Amino acid sequence: MKDKTNKMITSRDVNFAEWYTDICRVADLVDYSSVKGSMIIRPYGYAIWENIVAVLDKKFKETGHVNVQMPMFIPESLFNLEKEHVEGFAPEVAWVTHGGSEELAERMLVRPTSEVLFCDHYKKIIKSYRDLPILYNQWCTIVRWEKETRPFLRSREILWQEGHTMHATREEAIEETLRMLNVYRDVQENYLALPVITGKKTEKEKFAGAEATYTLEAMMYDGIALQNGTSHYFGQGFAKAFGIQFLNKENKLETPYQTSWGVTTRMIGAIIMTHGDDLGLVLPPMIAPIKVAIIPIGDVNEILNQITELLKKEGITFVVDNSDKSPGFKFAEAEVKGYPLRLEVGKRDLEAGCVVLVRRDTLEKISVPIDEVISKIKELLINIQSNLYNRAKMRRDSMIYHANNYEEFLEIAKNKPGFIIGKWCGDVNCENKIKEDTTFKSRCIIDEENNGKCVCCGKEAHYNLYWGKQY
Amino acid sequence: MKDKTNKMITSRDVNFAEWYTDICRVADLVDYSSVKGSMIIRPYGYAIWENIVAVLDKKFKETGHVNVQMPMFIPESLFNLEKEHVEGFAPEVAWVTHGGSEELAERMLVRPTSEVLFCDHYKKIIKSYRDLPILYNQWCTIVRWEKETRPFLRSREILWQEGHTMHATREEAIEETLRMLNVYRDVQENYLALPVITGKKTEKEKFAGAEATYTLEAMMYDGIALQNGTSHYFGQGFAKAFGIQFLNKENKLETPYQTSWGVTTRMIGAIIMTHGDDLGLVLPPMIAPIKVAIIPIGDVNEILNQITELLKKEGITFVVDNSDKSPGFKFAEAEVKGYPLRLEVGKRDLEAGCVVLVRRDTLEKISVPIDEVISKIKELLINIQSNLYNRAKMRRDSMIYHANNYEEFLEIAKNKPGFIIGKWCGDVNCENKIKEDTTFKSRCIIDEENNGKCVCCGKEAHYNLYWGKQY
Repeated sequence: MKDKTNKMITSRDVNFAEWYTDICRVADLVDYSSVKGSMIIRPYGYAIWENIVAVLDKKFKETGHVNVQMPMFIPESLFNLEKEHVEGFAPEVAWVTHGGSEELAERMLVRPTSEVLFCDHYKKIIKSYRDLPILYNQWCTIVRWEKETRPFLRSREILWQEGHTMHATREEAIEETLRMLNVYRDVQENYLALPVITGKKTEKEKFAGAEATYTLEAMMYDGIALQNGTSHYFGQGFAKAFGIQFLNKENKLETPYQTSWGVTTRMIGAIIMTHGDDLGLVLPPMIAPIKVAIIPIGDVNEILNQITELLKKEGITFVVDNSDKSPGFKFAEAEVKGYPLRLEVGKRDLEAGCVVLVRRDTLEKISVPIDEVISKIKELLINIQSNLYNRAKMRRDSMIYHANNYEEFLEIAKNKPGFIIGKWCGDVNCENKIKEDTTFKSRCIIDEENNGKCVCCGKEAHYNLYWGKQY
Repeated sequence: MKDKTNKMITSRDVNFAEWYTDICRVADLVDYSSVKGSMIIRPYGYAIWENIVAVLDKKFKETGHVNVQMPMFIPESLFNLEKEHVEGFAPEVAWVTHGGSEELAERMLVRPTSEVLFCDHYKKIIKSYRDLPILYNQWCTIVRWEKETRPFLRSREILWQEGHTMHATREEAIEETLRMLNVYRDVQENYLALPVITGKKTEKEKFAGAEATYTLEAMMYDGIALQNGTSHYFGQGFAKAFGIQFLNKENKLETPYQTSWGVTTRMIGAIIMTHGDDLGLVLPPMIAPIKVAIIPIGDVNEILNQITELLKKEGITFVVDNSDKSPGFKFAEAEVKGYPLRLEVGKRDLEAGCVVLVRRDTLEKISVPIDEVISKIKELLINIQSNLYNRAKMRRDSMIYHANNYEEFLEIAKNKPGFIIGKWCGDVNCENKIKEDTTFKSRCIIDEENNGKCVCCGKEAHYNLYWGKQY
């Protein structure tokens, strides 16, 4: 039986894009605004973000990082200092040209990312090897003037964090790049329940100005890839462009090595498109703002108070739906919001000494003796968390295919949603051809083996890659 | 004896403005950037902000508020909907005119405050009395195109929070306005150790578009006022301009009542200028990122490890200065940074079974038996917190004067830094004249008594006010 609430959700198998925007709206995650291309993150969506931020920020601090706040504007001349970087970002920046009624002597852009601002600061504060490493992070909003936008996935304004670090040696900087990639993997797998593939981007797909870009690639329900975070090794590129130098232990001037790494609210999009279903959002317990939706049926105040007191003591977040809506409507609303557990407290069950718990991930109904309800909730929350991860991983793994030649590649790309593993010669022309023919792009490099044949041109292969369509 | 570190600080009694910027720089709170008018908040400064944010955010949530994220841009036509508001802010906004290489069809401003964005959203989500109250808050950066800037006090970019609430009745909205004023007072007095005067602004000084503005006024060391937060009651002004209506219980359309309230990183400026001294910053323990600076003198590793283990267990933050600088230099550095306590662990004291604690607020040295060090630290942190507040309050109270006529007012304004209590007829001409003659502005209304004479024109007074110069 479909009621008023979930009627508003398009089936994900009928139209995945519509299903996605329906979920964003019906679960009260976002709202559209009068500002073209910018979304409003509503309280429930923002609470998910706050939980993700809390987890990440703790891990950043545990790995020695500190937070700072840089300006949001970049003067044009400062932005122009690193050439590749400018070319990469110039087409999609917002320009501030006037302050009050006066035209600015030099126009400024709103930061699309802050490498140049950090470098400008580092030039001043780095003098000696004693000042290194510098391990800074910033939580802020960036702006990229996108033409097409979708909630959480592609927006003109993006909430994110950007880490920017400086190191005395190349080895240390590469280690940092990979360390933060692994922090991201840890958080995405163990908190967001998102299986991710990590690896290096090709030259064509790397960040403008980076020497190497490492990525986290998640596969959505529809088989399309979502790049869910990146960690860049910059070498000395920016440092040289900005003239950043330090005196080493031998009192000689050296140029430091740099990294940057970032994740955004896009991760919320990944959660929606990985775990959600036709009834609504499904949130992993580790980052769900509300773990249990309690729905009293009839006059059950006494036992309800006992249960909520225990939940408070245990620090398990909950909401009680005391509205005058029908139980069926309340169930549907709890499903739309993706609360990991629903607790039904009804007179009839209470007479048998029980309450009913309903898992959001499987919709399984579990009758539980009242005095076991808290321990059962704890157990189920852990269980739901791992089930969501395992289910998503099995699904993803079942949608990864191997192609040995171009015929196979085209066949799979045409008929099967998902990723393709295929070898590559390293020639950007093959990468371009594959994209033109199939809209598949290289996701990341699995390994750099010198054997087999390029899946596109048939010449000697140097890389094994994941390929896929992307959001 | 002055050493290298504090030599760089101008005496606050010689040149308070220079002293202030010296502290900001030498304590590593901020750095100037290549972006004119925008400061960089360095890790130590940002850690103070993070602690203040944590305290405020908890209190906002305890009073039923939730966080959201609105766009940072405002289309010009949306901004123009509330007339007084536009006139107040138009001269100091930054305009975005281009996205990439294209000129925008309609230019946008970077939010100087977000009333219009919240109202635009509220128009969509408020339908019924059941939707009220709406208690939203946003943590973000705003932009005001100031000509003259000073770290934390006046900057083109400001980190702040802005609460925006909607209520079914006038009474409820006024209650919210005052509730949040009191939350601010609680945080400023009990965490930042800042005595504040709270009250209503005059018509001339209220927020552009508000029906009433309540303010928190702190007095700095030099006797000058710092407006350290405001809470506004809007009545139905914005709601009517935006056509926001709700169906009341009788199924009739009504216009809701609105508030907004905000505090900024300016509070860090107030902390510096209230508690700091010629040796550097002095931080109240409740918001100090590091409570104890430990300075080992000689080889004292064993006892040092014992102490730091205990501090960790107690959750008391500390830093150990193991550098090769001299003890004197380390002492000075700890003083510059304003760590509430310095713990000297030296071989000679240890032989007597003691360590030495030095209070940053009084510079008092206290020899403590080793096994009492943790309990003494706890006791002193509480003591320093209250001493900072009491000291600041006594100082402030000693700099508040009464003026009964204009001669007295001019005499005090000329010779005595601080606030003046003086009656006022309510005529803006008197307010303007006082400002022209003395640069004193009305700070806030103490009461609205109908007796006595206006301190400026001598006519019948309707208000009793605080007057003062301001930052």
